Amino acid sequence: MIQSSHTLTASELDQWFNQRLSAVEEALSLWISPDAPAGLGQAMRYAVLDGGKRLRPMLVLAAREAVGNGVKDETFDAAAMRAACAVELIHAYSLVHDDMPCMDNDVLRRGKPTVHVQFGEAQALLAGDALQALAFELLTPDSKSTAMTYAQKSIPDDVQARLCRLLAKAAGFNGMAGGQAIDLASVGLALNEHQLHEMHLLKTGALLEASVMMGAACGHTNAQVWNCLQRYGRAVGLAFQVVDDILDVTSDSVTLGKTAGKDAANDKPTYVSLLGLNRAQEYAEQLLHEALKALQDSGLASAHTLVALAQRVVNRKT
Amino acid sequence: MIQSSHTLTASELDQWFNQRLSAVEEALSLWISPDAPAGLGQAMRYAVLDGGKRLRPMLVLAAREAVGNGVKDETFDAAAMRAACAVELIHAYSLVHDDMPCMDNDVLRRGKPTVHVQFGEAQALLAGDALQALAFELLTPDSKSTAMTYAQKSIPDDVQARLCRLLAKAAGFNGMAGGQAIDLASVGLALNEHQLHEMHLLKTGALLEASVMMGAACGHTNAQVWNCLQRYGRAVGLAFQVVDDILDVTSDSVTLGKTAGKDAANDKPTYVSLLGLNRAQEYAEQLLHEALKALQDSGLASAHTLVALAQRVVNRKT
Repeated sequence: MIQSSHTLTASELDQWFNQRLSAVEEALSLWISPDAPAGLGQAMRYAVLDGGKRLRPMLVLAAREAVGNGVKDETFDAAAMRAACAVELIHAYSLVHDDMPCMDNDVLRRGKPTVHVQFGEAQALLAGDALQALAFELLTPDSKSTAMTYAQKSIPDDVQARLCRLLAKAAGFNGMAGGQAIDLASVGLALNEHQLHEMHLLKTGALLEASVMMGAACGHTNAQVWNCLQRYGRAVGLAFQVVDDILDVTSDSVTLGKTAGKDAANDKPTYVSLLGLNRAQEYAEQLLHEALKALQDSGLASAHTLVALAQRVVNRKT
Repeated sequence: MIQSSHTLTASELDQWFNQRLSAVEEALSLWISPDAPAGLGQAMRYAVLDGGKRLRPMLVLAAREAVGNGVKDETFDAAAMRAACAVELIHAYSLVHDDMPCMDNDVLRRGKPTVHVQFGEAQALLAGDALQALAFELLTPDSKSTAMTYAQKSIPDDVQARLCRLLAKAAGFNGMAGGQAIDLASVGLALNEHQLHEMHLLKTGALLEASVMMGAACGHTNAQVWNCLQRYGRAVGLAFQVVDDILDVTSDSVTLGKTAGKDAANDKPTYVSLLGLNRAQEYAEQLLHEALKALQDSGLASAHTLVALAQRVVNRKT
């Protein structure tokens, strides 16, 4: 294991996490208006609020703090909070659509009935669509706005454009949506490790990697730091999926807050079905090692939270 | 009728339209990669290419030409082509999702089987999602790209940010998706004129208005011109919907390329069911008058194509 002189203890990470979590939850609640027409706001809020590990927003904020070297910058901090919420909206919309009857047909998510069970399929479809649009709306606040409260603080145009670019690519056909299409087409097929890798790099990896890069875009970086953070993001993204596959067979629905064992039930290829449980766990450890090595190579002095987040991704129980 | 010294004849508009149409079709075909994973690219291309009136892209291009005063500008022209395609992708995705069984359950669109009939519901859902993401990807090309072909030409960050802002807002809960939620909730209800107006301002009006504003964002404008073009866009957007409602009862499926009479069959409130056919036609004329008045007030010397497009929206037969 690579040692870092700045590794956080579990309780230090908890403290860091919980402080940011309150801010993220508050911002999400502020930005997803309950007044959206005809119950749409309620469905959107139901899909996003009161649940979720918020890993993606935390990766955004931790990456922003790492490149900011711990120095406060109101503009970049406001941009990072918007980016954190935008990424979470994309993640949440993908879950809403993924749970629908024509996809995974799942009824339980974060311990609650899924959005289409609660609000009907049509409203779930629209809520997902509206959440994706809202993500890009959050990233592009109008600089001419005169109300400069925290939530309305302007962001430089170049940062807005870069954040939209990173998020759009990660969400689209070359990212999450493309990975889901592969997932859909792969049910019942015997994928090899390379194919499974490709699928997950897109399906979950792209958005996790984008979270790190969007955080890095909220600050000044050079190409070397940028590349190292990209390696980190890619390794953490893949590790997340490997652990997800492990938990799907080693945990239960109550602990996970979603239906356990559904990959096997749906005859979906996973790292566990391909490698077996032991080698899947070794692979997760190897990816953690790669992530920490990338941080070390970056030379960033304030990467301790990114270190701790990567460790938590691999060691999580839910 | 307000007279313009620069009104195009029908054949002049056809010529203008067809020239731009080829460029838009070519750009859409270039940007929607057939290589997107697992057949997703095929479903996306099927949803967008070879069909559609392309009214929204044409409004973008006409507005850009109006604010550019006929002067060529490679950067703004490239931005406008991206904006034109992005708006069309949002429109196309909304049709894909709107046609799905949980929404309108329609099997015919642009004279072809709808996307979910052709590719299955899950792929249709993903194709729509990926088209929305691609719209924002088109608007945010990487300025560091070294390949500066036409399609890869860079766009200034402030224009990228403004285009994303306009499109995200028009597509989301305060625009198209919100309007669709009202539409969904209004089936079988007796809406009054104000409520119907609100629904259509969001459902179809927001994206048509945004098309005009995105074209205007690809150039230098002052606040007065901006406001006039917004009035124009809003009037044309509403007129489009009124005429849509009229055609739904006066035309047939073959002419329309989609199922005629479906509003009445679905017990949906329309301008025709509310006002009767004659008053609906008068209302469309009134909105055309408002649109042309707004152009006159703008003082733009090169607004003749916008004039002709508004006239065509109201006088169209499909």
